[in-house]
Amino acid sequence: MGKTVTEKILDDHLVEGDLEPGEEIGIEIDQVLTQDTTGTLVWLQFEALGLDNVQTELAAQYCDHQTYQFDFKNTDDHRFLRSAAGTFGAYFSRPGNGICHNVHRENFAAPGKTLLGSDSHTPTPGGLGQLAIGSGGLDVAVAMGGGAYYIEMPEVVEVRLEGELPEWGTAKDIILEMLRRLSVKGGVGKIFEYTGPGVESLSAPERMTITNMGTELGATSSIFPADEQTKDYLNRVGRGEEYDPLQPDDDADYHDSITIDLSDLEPLIAEPSMPDNVVPVREAAGADVDQVMVGSCTNGAYEDILPVAKMLEGRSINLSTEMIVAPGSKKASEMLAREGWTAELMAAGVNFSEATCGACIGIGHVPGSDSISLRTFNRNFEGRSGIEDDNVYLCSPEVAAASALAGEIVDPRDLDEDLEDPGFEMPDSFEGAEHDIIDPDEAVDDDLIKGPNIGDVPLKDPLGADIEGSTLLRMGDNITTDHIIPATQDILMYRSNIPKLSEFTLSRVDDTFADRALNADGGFLVAGENYGQGSSREHAALCPMFLGIEGVLAQSFARIHKANLFNFGVLPLEIEEDAYENIDQGDDIEVVDNVADAVRSGKEEFTIRVNDDWEATGVLDASERERDILAAGGKLSYVKQQHEDGGAAPADD
Amino acid sequence: MGKTVTEKILDDHLVEGDLEPGEEIGIEIDQVLTQDTTGTLVWLQFEALGLDNVQTELAAQYCDHQTYQFDFKNTDDHRFLRSAAGTFGAYFSRPGNGICHNVHRENFAAPGKTLLGSDSHTPTPGGLGQLAIGSGGLDVAVAMGGGAYYIEMPEVVEVRLEGELPEWGTAKDIILEMLRRLSVKGGVGKIFEYTGPGVESLSAPERMTITNMGTELGATSSIFPADEQTKDYLNRVGRGEEYDPLQPDDDADYHDSITIDLSDLEPLIAEPSMPDNVVPVREAAGADVDQVMVGSCTNGAYEDILPVAKMLEGRSINLSTEMIVAPGSKKASEMLAREGWTAELMAAGVNFSEATCGACIGIGHVPGSDSISLRTFNRNFEGRSGIEDDNVYLCSPEVAAASALAGEIVDPRDLDEDLEDPGFEMPDSFEGAEHDIIDPDEAVDDDLIKGPNIGDVPLKDPLGADIEGSTLLRMGDNITTDHIIPATQDILMYRSNIPKLSEFTLSRVDDTFADRALNADGGFLVAGENYGQGSSREHAALCPMFLGIEGVLAQSFARIHKANLFNFGVLPLEIEEDAYENIDQGDDIEVVDNVADAVRSGKEEFTIRVNDDWEATGVLDASERERDILAAGGKLSYVKQQHEDGGAAPADD
Repeated sequence: MGKTVTEKILDDHLVEGDLEPGEEIGIEIDQVLTQDTTGTLVWLQFEALGLDNVQTELAAQYCDHQTYQFDFKNTDDHRFLRSAAGTFGAYFSRPGNGICHNVHRENFAAPGKTLLGSDSHTPTPGGLGQLAIGSGGLDVAVAMGGGAYYIEMPEVVEVRLEGELPEWGTAKDIILEMLRRLSVKGGVGKIFEYTGPGVESLSAPERMTITNMGTELGATSSIFPADEQTKDYLNRVGRGEEYDPLQPDDDADYHDSITIDLSDLEPLIAEPSMPDNVVPVREAAGADVDQVMVGSCTNGAYEDILPVAKMLEGRSINLSTEMIVAPGSKKASEMLAREGWTAELMAAGVNFSEATCGACIGIGHVPGSDSISLRTFNRNFEGRSGIEDDNVYLCSPEVAAASALAGEIVDPRDLDEDLEDPGFEMPDSFEGAEHDIIDPDEAVDDDLIKGPNIGDVPLKDPLGADIEGSTLLRMGDNITTDHIIPATQDILMYRSNIPKLSEFTLSRVDDTFADRALNADGGFLVAGENYGQGSSREHAALCPMFLGIEGVLAQSFARIHKANLFNFGVLPLEIEEDAYENIDQGDDIEVVDNVADAVRSGKEEFTIRVNDDWEATGVLDASERERDILAAGGKLSYVKQQHEDGGAAPADD
Repeated sequence: MGKTVTEKILDDHLVEGDLEPGEEIGIEIDQVLTQDTTGTLVWLQFEALGLDNVQTELAAQYCDHQTYQFDFKNTDDHRFLRSAAGTFGAYFSRPGNGICHNVHRENFAAPGKTLLGSDSHTPTPGGLGQLAIGSGGLDVAVAMGGGAYYIEMPEVVEVRLEGELPEWGTAKDIILEMLRRLSVKGGVGKIFEYTGPGVESLSAPERMTITNMGTELGATSSIFPADEQTKDYLNRVGRGEEYDPLQPDDDADYHDSITIDLSDLEPLIAEPSMPDNVVPVREAAGADVDQVMVGSCTNGAYEDILPVAKMLEGRSINLSTEMIVAPGSKKASEMLAREGWTAELMAAGVNFSEATCGACIGIGHVPGSDSISLRTFNRNFEGRSGIEDDNVYLCSPEVAAASALAGEIVDPRDLDEDLEDPGFEMPDSFEGAEHDIIDPDEAVDDDLIKGPNIGDVPLKDPLGADIEGSTLLRMGDNITTDHIIPATQDILMYRSNIPKLSEFTLSRVDDTFADRALNADGGFLVAGENYGQGSSREHAALCPMFLGIEGVLAQSFARIHKANLFNFGVLPLEIEEDAYENIDQGDDIEVVDNVADAVRSGKEEFTIRVNDDWEATGVLDASERERDILAAGGKLSYVKQQHEDGGAAPADD
């Protein structure tokens, strides 16, 4: 049976499992990327592995989220990341050089390769035929250490494109149409593979607008074939030799198929406050627009801003509207400046921002109260812009430019002044910002530079034979990861400082907990149903581990948090309601029966002794791999042990 | 006897007093400027005056401090300021259009005019022969209402420039030499008037680098004559018709005279952490530089950045150094972009920032810990960059560029690569950002737009015959204005919200005070010696007034705070130690004897009845003008009353 593009790449990289949807597979990772808010922890974890150099073909560290360097901790983080990249052999993209996805696609993305990145929009280079997946930082650290990446094999769904885009129709409208049809949950557990005659009509940058925003469908990834358009783009960015054609087999078998006729599309817009809240622009037209922002990893490329510049040249934006252009990369900024477009945009009333994620994540240009912001970004979740009750709309650069001229939401076809569709155009070559990526060979650091806010990451010892300690906190049902580690701004800045961050652990439940745990010699958490629901953040397992928590006894666990507990070497045991009711805070807990061996051997039921007085049963529901990781003291310890045993990390085989 | 330039302008604008150093004079104000952190309160105060339009020839509102709009309150402030400018007839410079001083000099500054601005670097256009003075926001509001500006007549000190600058010598080195000689206190109570043959060799922009940074000498203002250089600059900015020659008389009488031979100067640098900590660059050379910033109102003009671009063209900055260029105005940004310099700078590794005060006030690009930042700015006070224990050096753009190339502090004459001094050059015309100032005639608002964080400013009623109330708080000696209204970041954001800001009044002394005062029907503060020392902030008088405080009884007052109490209609009475010792918190206080009339009539001793039981004496030490202001309920009420009485504000005469 024929293979999809996805299956071909996976097959090439498979180190464990079979390509059956739902089955766990392990794949070798060729490239990794990380950015400044997730990267610090990734490198601290990598440091803890004790390796001299990254093991992937390529690793790239970007600084894009905190480029305004609002706090010295941001600047220190950037310096640390430069030093880590230099020390361990990664490329370092200097602060201000642009958004990881944009810079990566310009410099490194290549068809047929796998890419793992600690950012949710990592799938962007799927538009070049690269299989790119976003993950947690620990997975990236492990991949850099040569470990395979494990994932449940997704369903591969065909998105068949027919026809060609009409005037004023854009790639953004294709992905908005996908969101309109499938919703933000429509891609969960899936990889969307674009096929059909319409594919050929889309340039690689247009494809990457689509694959970038596949993340908003909840997809594991999105991918296009590698064809003449791919080759053309790689030639223009000066990497033609990396072209490798890649097409699905004629008899490739897709799990499902969707067809979009591009000629049916018209300018679309996502209304507040969800990317799938999509309607034709004409249905939203007429609302006063206070702020227009062009940029982000979705529509911040040179070729995205060029149509805006053409539309605004010789005109001026409405005086009631502020318009900011934040190029996705400094290369784009430099090219726009060199060709005079920056001056034209400024003359029209536009402000230029540094190349940054910035406003997309609520850093800078926060909309005013009771105002409308129109953005070419990928997300408009309520409050993400930095103000609660925001009204953020998502659209194409062309719709954004038209609306800035009008001062209200408008379909470009309905502008008073008759504008021509500027069309989509690429430069002959992408040249600029040549001094803003530091090659590992020219690294300026050979040792880590840690400012006072950058702490070490602890490695946990392997599980012992007995595990005992006090019940340090007894909680109710539905404790979220927000309870475990809050994500408010005042706490977020400590994400590269685990000792400091850990002080906030479970503070929303009991603000004496962290102190008590740190001073205790190990201990347990006890909870009711659904412990660890909510955000997938790894810190919710890492911080309790740092504080010495050995195990969590709960009636049930949220799936992702349980996986994180394995990854950080904390034993998650399910207990019955009776047991839960009878354990009090302060009770002594002992898990007996040679725990380490039992975990490894696949034992499911463990005896829990309470106060040396009565016993309960704790159930361990874990795969073989999860058991090995847990017994080793967590994923990092597991990978480190494999290296010490002779470099037996799967991806090195 | 002949007159100085300063005296000629003052003479033209004098409405009260004589030009004798130390004497209070009142002058008519032609132009006012205000920016976004001080402007909100200025307009709220102006609104409270009840006038339809600003009364000065010209008023200009700039948005330059919070252009990154990190919080919706910033964005709301900008929208409010646009609406206030539109409603009351001021020019509005849109957020991102640049720093007030840069934009003002390009668009409005004119020789012979007076300018009052609520920003300490308002004296910048002194380089064009304008007499420009920085003041508190209330003074600006009063001036906009047609009121005169009162000030003690400063001493006029001649700074005689001889010779010409040598290679690599710049205007920045002239003002650094002034600081080296005179210290940051050397200009207190003085206006520096530049004369001599060296003046002719300096272009107007170079002169404005000097007058701008005269503020760091503590000077009231700095001024140059208006001559052919002035005319030349005005021609280039398209306002040649505003040229008006202005020279001191040959027999002008200066209070003192300093001579600087420009040909003796060499590249200078201010070391951490005071602008007068000046040494030759060669003495500081060799220190590793982590960050270089070019910009600010001192050296952020097109003609300041041009030499940097010429030096960096075709080269690349050191990989260990981050370099940010933040143009002082969007006009400069657009011109640099149009001529290709922006692209060249980016190619060299420079990041471009929006045109903003930004990093100069610690907003963005905060240096890393234990690092060196080299800046072309005007201040390097410890911690101002946003991190305590910072190491900020101040220098010319040329020294900054050379050091960015070398990665360490270096005198450009000592660079390994032999660079030519790019010299100083002006464009034929300054064109750009033509749509970024909204003329009052094209205003888009005719009513105020107040977001939820923008509160009204109260006007106080005139003093009554009797004043009575409870002793709401009894304090010790040396209470600072930081005690009265803290200036920490979490509180600063409420400076346009007096009701909210007032909740923090004296919270560092007693956090129940604000609540108690608000719920009381008037009341008094009682303090020991030196009440109100420290920063001059007006909120330390405004907020207690808002809470209903009628008077302050203290053993002694800090000078500026007492003036602020007059300005906000709060009665400051000095009491003896005995009385202070015997008044307890909660005691009832009554100031008797027809207070309002007594204040107006010049009475110095007032009877204070305590608990209807015993009496003390309170001394009012105030000028006639201060008494009138106090009796009227404060300066705003005073000006408002004058308008209601028939527009009798002095400057309208």
